[in-house]
Amino acid sequence: MKVLIVHAHPEPRSLNGALKDIAVSTLREAGHEVRVSDLYAMRWKAAADAGDYGPHASTPLKVAADSGRAFEAGALGDDVRAEQEKLLWADTVILQFPLWWYSMPAILKGWVDRVFTYRFAYGVGEHSDVKYGERYGEGTLAGRRALLSVTVGGPEAHYGPRGINGPIEDLLFPIQHGILFYPGIESVEPFVVHGADRMSEDTFADIAKAWRERLLTLEEAEPIPYRRQNFGDYELPSLQLKEGLEPAGRSGFGLHVRR
Amino acid sequence: MKVLIVHAHPEPRSLNGALKDIAVSTLREAGHEVRVSDLYAMRWKAAADAGDYGPHASTPLKVAADSGRAFEAGALGDDVRAEQEKLLWADTVILQFPLWWYSMPAILKGWVDRVFTYRFAYGVGEHSDVKYGERYGEGTLAGRRALLSVTVGGPEAHYGPRGINGPIEDLLFPIQHGILFYPGIESVEPFVVHGADRMSEDTFADIAKAWRERLLTLEEAEPIPYRRQNFGDYELPSLQLKEGLEPAGRSGFGLHVRR
Repeated sequence: MKVLIVHAHPEPRSLNGALKDIAVSTLREAGHEVRVSDLYAMRWKAAADAGDYGPHASTPLKVAADSGRAFEAGALGDDVRAEQEKLLWADTVILQFPLWWYSMPAILKGWVDRVFTYRFAYGVGEHSDVKYGERYGEGTLAGRRALLSVTVGGPEAHYGPRGINGPIEDLLFPIQHGILFYPGIESVEPFVVHGADRMSEDTFADIAKAWRERLLTLEEAEPIPYRRQNFGDYELPSLQLKEGLEPAGRSGFGLHVRR
Repeated sequence: MKVLIVHAHPEPRSLNGALKDIAVSTLREAGHEVRVSDLYAMRWKAAADAGDYGPHASTPLKVAADSGRAFEAGALGDDVRAEQEKLLWADTVILQFPLWWYSMPAILKGWVDRVFTYRFAYGVGEHSDVKYGERYGEGTLAGRRALLSVTVGGPEAHYGPRGINGPIEDLLFPIQHGILFYPGIESVEPFVVHGADRMSEDTFADIAKAWRERLLTLEEAEPIPYRRQNFGDYELPSLQLKEGLEPAGRSGFGLHVRR
């Protein structure tokens, strides 16, 4: 595999840092190629702004259109172009991050906001009455796979089907489906560590072992079967799931997974 | 009302900038007090790191614990303390932002990550076998209300109950419930504008009118009735919704809204 690890924690000696280090060593020892984007170490700029688009920033600024023109002209900033190149190089992407306020840390969201530009990650393919682009299963990054490795402070029960925080698969849906599947990347089941703030050494040893096993079986893991947009499951132009594919009246993110 | 508007768009002459300006003028003309945190204009630092906690940053860094000790010592950075003071001053919070990749722009996520510190927004109240803190309806910011004003590029149908992107109320749940309700802030129904990237002047005039009406009826609007944590709806210590409160087998974010 060619693996890109995007790491988003400010402390190298954190649980996240340790999981990132384990991933690098485990994958390399198994013969895989690994590149790491350590966003805090890179002092990654989080906020998308006119500076990202150079001479292609219009007045007033249009984030989508300007980013697309800068992308097509090869004129995005060096930091953004380097990340796009890494994504095109990789066949596997690991996002390593702590769940902060039920989502990614700002620095990682800023990696998405700035790297996933128009014409690269969205606005790709025919947009017409009969097709709304190549997205959700097709697109620039199709054929790649992703694995989220997420540390969570609270206990697992709080993130269960009836848990107060909401199910972890629903909290991660906007990342696995909305961000990754949109330009074509399929996610395998996430690796989620609970109780991250108060962990014994024994517990960490168990987690490290489980993490190595997940990494070494990653090539054979089945992706989450999100429904692809352009293969008959959705009405046009509304892009609503066709009647009959799920029980009437059901709603929520789970509709978009084939069971 | 005392209204804090947190604004997160890089272009003042954008749709978001216009909606923010309308909110300021409409509310002030109606006699309300308004303060604005214009995050791009403030060059808001998005990434939480050791620099936020001054002498209270431990080695290795512990984001939750260190932020809590810095908060209790009054030693957080000036920028973060100013935002916490604004939240305590306000009785109403408006978040004005474009939906980027199904969530907030990184700069706004970084406002949450850095301002909603331990002991201020979480880690508040008794944590024991019989109580897991004051959160979800109680907490430091209880009694306040929020209104999300969100611009979305895609059409409304894509965000409907069976729409391919997922229902807008589920996409906003991690913000309205996970971020705002957690320290006690109740959200009213969001103001969502679709088709934001290609809008005619006539459409904008209609939206501006609807937005003014929402602002002028905000005081009477009913909040979304999320279930409060500590008032009998959840098992302890699992914090799973009690059996019988929703049909068996149902899951998803919608369980946590009283209907």
